Amino acid sequence: MYKIEVINIGDELLLGLRHNTHLDYLGAQFALCGQKIWRARVVNDSVSEIQRAVADAWQQADLVITTGGLGPTSDDLTREAVAQQLGLELCFDATVLSAIQARFDRLGFALTEQHKKQCYVFKQGAVLRNDFGTAPGLYYEDGRRCLVMLPGPPRELLPMFEQQVLARLVASQRLSQQTYFLQLRTCGYGESELEALVEPIVAPYPSLKVAFCVHDALVDLRLSAERKEFSQGQLKAIGAHIVDRLGASFVGFGEDSLAQVIYRALRKANRTVAVAESCTGGMLGNAFTDVPGISKVFQGGVICYTNEVKASLLSVPDALLQQHGAVSSECAIAMATGAAERMSADYGLSITGYLGPGGGDAANPLGTVHLGFTGPEGVWSQSVRFKGGRAELKSRAVVAALDWMRRELLRAGLI
Amino acid sequence: MYKIEVINIGDELLLGLRHNTHLDYLGAQFALCGQKIWRARVVNDSVSEIQRAVADAWQQADLVITTGGLGPTSDDLTREAVAQQLGLELCFDATVLSAIQARFDRLGFALTEQHKKQCYVFKQGAVLRNDFGTAPGLYYEDGRRCLVMLPGPPRELLPMFEQQVLARLVASQRLSQQTYFLQLRTCGYGESELEALVEPIVAPYPSLKVAFCVHDALVDLRLSAERKEFSQGQLKAIGAHIVDRLGASFVGFGEDSLAQVIYRALRKANRTVAVAESCTGGMLGNAFTDVPGISKVFQGGVICYTNEVKASLLSVPDALLQQHGAVSSECAIAMATGAAERMSADYGLSITGYLGPGGGDAANPLGTVHLGFTGPEGVWSQSVRFKGGRAELKSRAVVAALDWMRRELLRAGLI
Repeated sequence: MYKIEVINIGDELLLGLRHNTHLDYLGAQFALCGQKIWRARVVNDSVSEIQRAVADAWQQADLVITTGGLGPTSDDLTREAVAQQLGLELCFDATVLSAIQARFDRLGFALTEQHKKQCYVFKQGAVLRNDFGTAPGLYYEDGRRCLVMLPGPPRELLPMFEQQVLARLVASQRLSQQTYFLQLRTCGYGESELEALVEPIVAPYPSLKVAFCVHDALVDLRLSAERKEFSQGQLKAIGAHIVDRLGASFVGFGEDSLAQVIYRALRKANRTVAVAESCTGGMLGNAFTDVPGISKVFQGGVICYTNEVKASLLSVPDALLQQHGAVSSECAIAMATGAAERMSADYGLSITGYLGPGGGDAANPLGTVHLGFTGPEGVWSQSVRFKGGRAELKSRAVVAALDWMRRELLRAGLI
Repeated sequence: MYKIEVINIGDELLLGLRHNTHLDYLGAQFALCGQKIWRARVVNDSVSEIQRAVADAWQQADLVITTGGLGPTSDDLTREAVAQQLGLELCFDATVLSAIQARFDRLGFALTEQHKKQCYVFKQGAVLRNDFGTAPGLYYEDGRRCLVMLPGPPRELLPMFEQQVLARLVASQRLSQQTYFLQLRTCGYGESELEALVEPIVAPYPSLKVAFCVHDALVDLRLSAERKEFSQGQLKAIGAHIVDRLGASFVGFGEDSLAQVIYRALRKANRTVAVAESCTGGMLGNAFTDVPGISKVFQGGVICYTNEVKASLLSVPDALLQQHGAVSSECAIAMATGAAERMSADYGLSITGYLGPGGGDAANPLGTVHLGFTGPEGVWSQSVRFKGGRAELKSRAVVAALDWMRRELLRAGLI
């Protein structure tokens, strides 16, 4: 097994101040190459911790990737710490300095002494050009092992990894493809229900690895198999069998979001959608507009935090709001139809509810959400209830709305 | 130094399939107690890796926290792996089974054999009740060290940690408060500019630790000091000095978002805001509505992905769209004023631009964003240009809009 270890450096990652997006990103990139990250660690900005982690990784892993700690400020100590630990020599690279100088001239910034620290590179290694920032990445390999040091800011790290690191790893045959992965995204079953459902299908294949991952209300099912034991066709056949059992709860293969699945269906049918949301406050629209190309099918949305906005922008009748209240099936339907009509869309999707911290009553306690959906096939509402904090409730309500629309499009034969 | 080590378990965290939100959460929780997580690691769902990590942590750390791997599905192996490694005995706990049974009866689910795995707990330890799921947490301490094992789902982990674990740690005097932290959030300066700016202020205090953390366009500056070397008053005085130097680029102390700062200012002035956004597609509204209590000041928003929606819901004149285009300062201003007028808000804030993958022209290349702002003090537009992928551009445009509004409120004396 080829062992990839990631070391993310930075106090902020241990203090709850910043998500470790690098690990997510690198994990996904290696998965695309059929590789898994073996293990990862997060260490603080101290020389001794960085050295301890690098020494340990260098002993046990085949490929060691560090992120962060290459910047100009004084809490960035990684370059020196690693060089010292691995007995590598740092030398000043004038090419790096001129690249930084050129970048700063272009941006109209002044170069400070601090930035010169970033010009020190491993004498025995290669320099990874930074097209979107100042600190270059560093690349070093001995016969067996390889060390890659990447800068912290994602907009610098991502292109550097994709354009330079992957090419080097493939060229030096450090990335081979030994494992097949197949991911099935599901919505509707809990983790253990899903396991019970797939158990009889996968039982005949003890060497097939089955894993589950829950996020929001989605559960991903991941099948992985060694190439020497399974053909890609076999894995696909097992996947197809599971898809069959999942029925409408199968969202798609891979990483497609619910909004992406809806997008593709609408694009194919040449239909459009508009949204109206109160308590989710833009998150539903945001989920749609995270999909590249969505402007072909997404007309727009109304975030209606007041009754007045519901009436004026979505034509929800005042009488309806008086009689049923803003958190009601009736209002959800009026919002969905209002959104579709006012924004000339074929489909309207709406969310209204109490997600806290205040609000809620006996009929509609905190966490109650009414969804509305309208389209050429009809008009419906649905009520759901969730528990959790504000952020979780928002996210669950959005998933519920999107999954419902997906199921309705499926029922209508559009997916 | 009291050493806290976190071990997050799960293949999905190494495959880029799920954010490791647990580490962020635990880091923030310990920071509130004046403690730092010493280091963290992520290991895959294999018995040997889990055991290796736990053994290493148990040797070097004072408090070891594991997350994940306690669930009912067969890829959850943690409980057994840890017990074996540390020589602890697992025994069946009938109380846990009845709690799961009661929960399932309430929800109308059937209990499967799988769930019984979750009823095994350390004979020598304590059980942490799970109020929001099935798998209980486990707590074990010997004289010096403490092990806490928490379930993976955030809605189970969070309340368990806050209501049970913290209380136990404080009661056993494992959490003492030895360090002061002061975080200053800034927007406007880059990381190295900020360091140059604070350098003369912090230079006289060599034992003061200064760290920087960049996220989106915000840079957090974190000062930390040992209690035995600084008084809280001294740290505050240094902070005040830095705030003074930062001027309008100082956002606030701690973790307040830009939207929270705006919320407080509007609430105090008894004024309201409405938004209009095209390319950010709901993310601006979502940023506002992440703030608890925002309904007091936030009227709503329009997500206008088509010219027709800009005209019908925001009263942007057709002639203006024809003459200047939808991506223009003129349109941004019309969207902001339209949002304020149509939603009866005191302030209107708008974003329009090309964020890709397609779109853009010579005058407004991809990444160009026009912002519009209207309020009792006047009407303005501003143009900004960013580089990056779709998601990053959306997020940067939202931060730019919010920070601009914050600065305008500051100028108007409302902050």
